[in-house]
Amino acid sequence: MELLEQRIKEDGEVLPGNILKVNNFLNHQVDTNLLDKMGEEFVRLYGNVEVTKILTIEASGIAIAYPVARQLNVPLVFAKKHQSLNVNDDVYVTKVWSFTHKAFYNVVVAKKFLSKDDKVLIVDDFLANGNALNGLIDLVEQAGAKVQGVCIAIEKGFQDGGKLIREKGYRVESLAIVDKMTDDGQIYFRKNS
Amino acid sequence: MELLEQRIKEDGEVLPGNILKVNNFLNHQVDTNLLDKMGEEFVRLYGNVEVTKILTIEASGIAIAYPVARQLNVPLVFAKKHQSLNVNDDVYVTKVWSFTHKAFYNVVVAKKFLSKDDKVLIVDDFLANGNALNGLIDLVEQAGAKVQGVCIAIEKGFQDGGKLIREKGYRVESLAIVDKMTDDGQIYFRKNS
Repeated sequence: MELLEQRIKEDGEVLPGNILKVNNFLNHQVDTNLLDKMGEEFVRLYGNVEVTKILTIEASGIAIAYPVARQLNVPLVFAKKHQSLNVNDDVYVTKVWSFTHKAFYNVVVAKKFLSKDDKVLIVDDFLANGNALNGLIDLVEQAGAKVQGVCIAIEKGFQDGGKLIREKGYRVESLAIVDKMTDDGQIYFRKNS
Repeated sequence: MELLEQRIKEDGEVLPGNILKVNNFLNHQVDTNLLDKMGEEFVRLYGNVEVTKILTIEASGIAIAYPVARQLNVPLVFAKKHQSLNVNDDVYVTKVWSFTHKAFYNVVVAKKFLSKDDKVLIVDDFLANGNALNGLIDLVEQAGAKVQGVCIAIEKGFQDGGKLIREKGYRVESLAIVDKMTDDGQIYFRKNS
């Protein structure tokens, strides 16, 4: 998506360790104009697909999931991150490894918000190694619901999460795929991403 | 706001300890139709007030802040919760006591997203003792910016956060003020809230 790639080039910060910060329109400050347009693009891409629920993960996932849920007129569910292992029977739980915090954390969704009849579109801001996304897919499948597809704002194409998840047969649509970042701040996008 | 009060009566769960759970439209599952209408009501209430930025706090604050920011066409900034005390010079930081976790945590906003010229509308889902809200007000004032007002979805009128903050001179608009909850699940709203 040209508009998003342009914005990443203008406002993205490349930090050591292949970190891409997009704090001023997606992860800390949010440009709802841009996110509304990104939502429209996801809705266009999944135009013919039946969707009963949007699933994302707190916190920044909520911002990009909101316009998708609004435009599709379906409920938005955000999975919660829990550090404690105290979870009860009312939730589906999956473990996700955090590279940032070098620890596992629990990601949970209340069972009442995902049923076997749900057709779920998963939405998230970033896809890199795929840990969080695999966790969300696991939650949907624990519920016996169907993953209709995945909507990602920015995919790091040089990490293998997207490749592995597509190879398992899931549809993943990323609005911008970064294939390479250089230490001097250059960002290269995959063509037609 | 009649529509919100009705929804709280239908879907809110009263738990021991004066806890009100509204997980199925605000705090875990989100009804964007309802939140869009709540956003419209905030915009109506602050119709003549100049606003350059919306400030909220992750995670569920993001959902209710989104439609306000979109309708006012201003950036949405969400403050982040940090458990560690390692913060750097690039952020404003304030300490907030969490009753849920019985601990202080840091709430931070990058300095570049709040400037002395900003006219800020603070938006959050709940107001009870006012700890989180006082933290957000503190962040705005550290930046030298102006708090134009506060938008709250649900205020617990039987706790004194709202009263104390209004007494300091801040304008606080709550779409539903709960004055009393009973153990058998009855919820009483303040008239004309």
